[in-house]
Amino acid sequence: MRITDIKDLTLSTGEKRSNAMMDFSDMTTGFVAVVTDVVRDGRPVIGYGFSGTGRYSQNAICRDRMIPRIMAADPDTLQNDAGDNLDPFRVWDCMMQKEKPGGHGDRAVAAATLDMAVWDAAAKIAGQPLYRYLADNYGKSPVPDRVPVYVGGGYYAPGRGLPELQDEIRGHLDDGFVVVKMKIGGAPLAEDLKRLDAVMAIVPSDNLAVDANGRFDHTAAMQYSDALAPLGLRWFEEPGFPLDFDLQADIARHYDGPLATGENLLSMWDAKNLLRYGGLRPEKDYLQFDCALSYGICEYIRTIDMVEEHGWSRQRLYPHGGHLLSLHITAGLGLGGTEAYPRTHQPVGGFTDGLTIADGYVGLPDIPGLGFEGKSNLYETLKRLGAEPD
Amino acid sequence: MRITDIKDLTLSTGEKRSNAMMDFSDMTTGFVAVVTDVVRDGRPVIGYGFSGTGRYSQNAICRDRMIPRIMAADPDTLQNDAGDNLDPFRVWDCMMQKEKPGGHGDRAVAAATLDMAVWDAAAKIAGQPLYRYLADNYGKSPVPDRVPVYVGGGYYAPGRGLPELQDEIRGHLDDGFVVVKMKIGGAPLAEDLKRLDAVMAIVPSDNLAVDANGRFDHTAAMQYSDALAPLGLRWFEEPGFPLDFDLQADIARHYDGPLATGENLLSMWDAKNLLRYGGLRPEKDYLQFDCALSYGICEYIRTIDMVEEHGWSRQRLYPHGGHLLSLHITAGLGLGGTEAYPRTHQPVGGFTDGLTIADGYVGLPDIPGLGFEGKSNLYETLKRLGAEPD
Repeated sequence: MRITDIKDLTLSTGEKRSNAMMDFSDMTTGFVAVVTDVVRDGRPVIGYGFSGTGRYSQNAICRDRMIPRIMAADPDTLQNDAGDNLDPFRVWDCMMQKEKPGGHGDRAVAAATLDMAVWDAAAKIAGQPLYRYLADNYGKSPVPDRVPVYVGGGYYAPGRGLPELQDEIRGHLDDGFVVVKMKIGGAPLAEDLKRLDAVMAIVPSDNLAVDANGRFDHTAAMQYSDALAPLGLRWFEEPGFPLDFDLQADIARHYDGPLATGENLLSMWDAKNLLRYGGLRPEKDYLQFDCALSYGICEYIRTIDMVEEHGWSRQRLYPHGGHLLSLHITAGLGLGGTEAYPRTHQPVGGFTDGLTIADGYVGLPDIPGLGFEGKSNLYETLKRLGAEPD
Repeated sequence: MRITDIKDLTLSTGEKRSNAMMDFSDMTTGFVAVVTDVVRDGRPVIGYGFSGTGRYSQNAICRDRMIPRIMAADPDTLQNDAGDNLDPFRVWDCMMQKEKPGGHGDRAVAAATLDMAVWDAAAKIAGQPLYRYLADNYGKSPVPDRVPVYVGGGYYAPGRGLPELQDEIRGHLDDGFVVVKMKIGGAPLAEDLKRLDAVMAIVPSDNLAVDANGRFDHTAAMQYSDALAPLGLRWFEEPGFPLDFDLQADIARHYDGPLATGENLLSMWDAKNLLRYGGLRPEKDYLQFDCALSYGICEYIRTIDMVEEHGWSRQRLYPHGGHLLSLHITAGLGLGGTEAYPRTHQPVGGFTDGLTIADGYVGLPDIPGLGFEGKSNLYETLKRLGAEPD
């Protein structure tokens, strides 16, 4: 079997929305299709991938460097020993040839985009949803019927006051979510506390998480820590600059409640340095490394191994992203739970259409691969890649 | 004054050559031209930039994200208070809008490419070589007549034996270099020691540095440390994975001679974590952060400040890269010395044509900006951007 073509497409996914650090209006998302010569139901198996949320399409890196390496490889070197499916790890090694160690970032997004499409194809060739394929081949626990999910929201936007914020939060509860995350740090502390009060009138504080998106310096982190501590929040996310591990450790000494971070550490090695130096506490803190932004599933499996070697349970992993990839790895690899972006970051955010979300859990799709074909706005986008046969 | 256009070009700069980790055959370099409406000698001032050596062109990131931000900005917001030149820091802030913190890598190369062209234009508008412009505006010491330089070489290549290695090294000494760096780690230890013996027959060991390009795990790093320690080498460079700060600290405890690292840490924050956790010794070790790969001069000035805040002298900085940018920042900002790539990484490697290299020092070009116009093979490339008026 072989990969016959890889196609790519970049689209604007901008939204008038911001958090404490970022304006999302110019955001783009990259999509790729890995076309194989394996036929299922009379059609070639096509794997799809997309770049994660909150950064930019890295398809130029895919196109300029990684796709040519894959297409130039002897197909035998990319398949499993049985010769009946892709070996995603062999494809990963192939596309990362001639890349220097260190200096991750956008390259990690590019690799993850392609990696996603390769795994989508591999699971489709195996005729399984990705979570099942992962659990069978790389998992350590049975696949649950449903996984814990929380919703990311509570953004700042022009003209958005407390009533609109409350309406949004009520909508999330109506949708079946129990744990809700809102943005902080994009307004002065006094105003953020009013926003928190408004939301806590609807959601109990132990089901409310807050996310500063790395905004705070040492002084602000301590001020917010002091102000948030009495509230008993679910977690306090990314208070400081993602690479400032000393600051993270100071906050962990100062703030007794659960902390969460990791979405902007784009490799196993950066994640390892967080665990080495960041002072996080395995019994209560959350690790949010984003598979779609950090070299993909191949690297995520290495990250999980690393996390366990450092004495953490993989249940402390709650991957960032709020999309199908995070759902599949959470279910298939036994992670603690996943984020959801049902309305933001479209067409990438959220899961397959009609998937049940209730009591803070989300069900699992029963479609081979990641199930892109069951999320209509995403699949409409993916069809624009032109990889589907007529 | 305003930027009227930004052009870009990517070229293959592949070479059949490798070190312990990397095959350079598919390498590309990106070039950009920042065209201004400022006229000098009857022609518009054009600033040029290139992506650094040993990674890949990031012009797609320049073109997709950073150039549009610069071109969309109100020109007044990009110039200095006097309105007579670009303010490179304001341009930098503009092009980095809407970029998430953390996750550096290729983005750092893209930003550095544009940053270089902006500084080239600013120094040309001021009518000064860049080192003079930096020293006048951001330096702390007088500009020297010449700066210490060492040559990077001693690569592995097919069919290259000890006689060819010795010939290369003799050529470097004939060129006026005194300190020479050679690659190790791409062959078994016993073979590397034979290569070292061959080179030490020509260069005294205290003028010979070795570079493992991040290849060694803990065991290999200790084996090489033990084998190299008696030789009294100038320095032992990048023994382990660039983000493995614990390994670096272990090596610093084990190996008494000077160590050097940093070329694959692509931001001030990664550099800071090296100083925090890497166990390096300010009295003898070398820091080799590469300005052209790590967000450019604006970030490098912040890195220098950070290095000094950590109790290091800026003289311990020996920027990687071996090109004109490293030369200018070394001279203009008072760093310890610079690498040179007179024959490799063309057309980017090396300095202006005919620049004197003698007794281990390199003179300084007397051309406004970085002096690209005085390096013929590089300037021929830059002219292909089509930014020069007819």
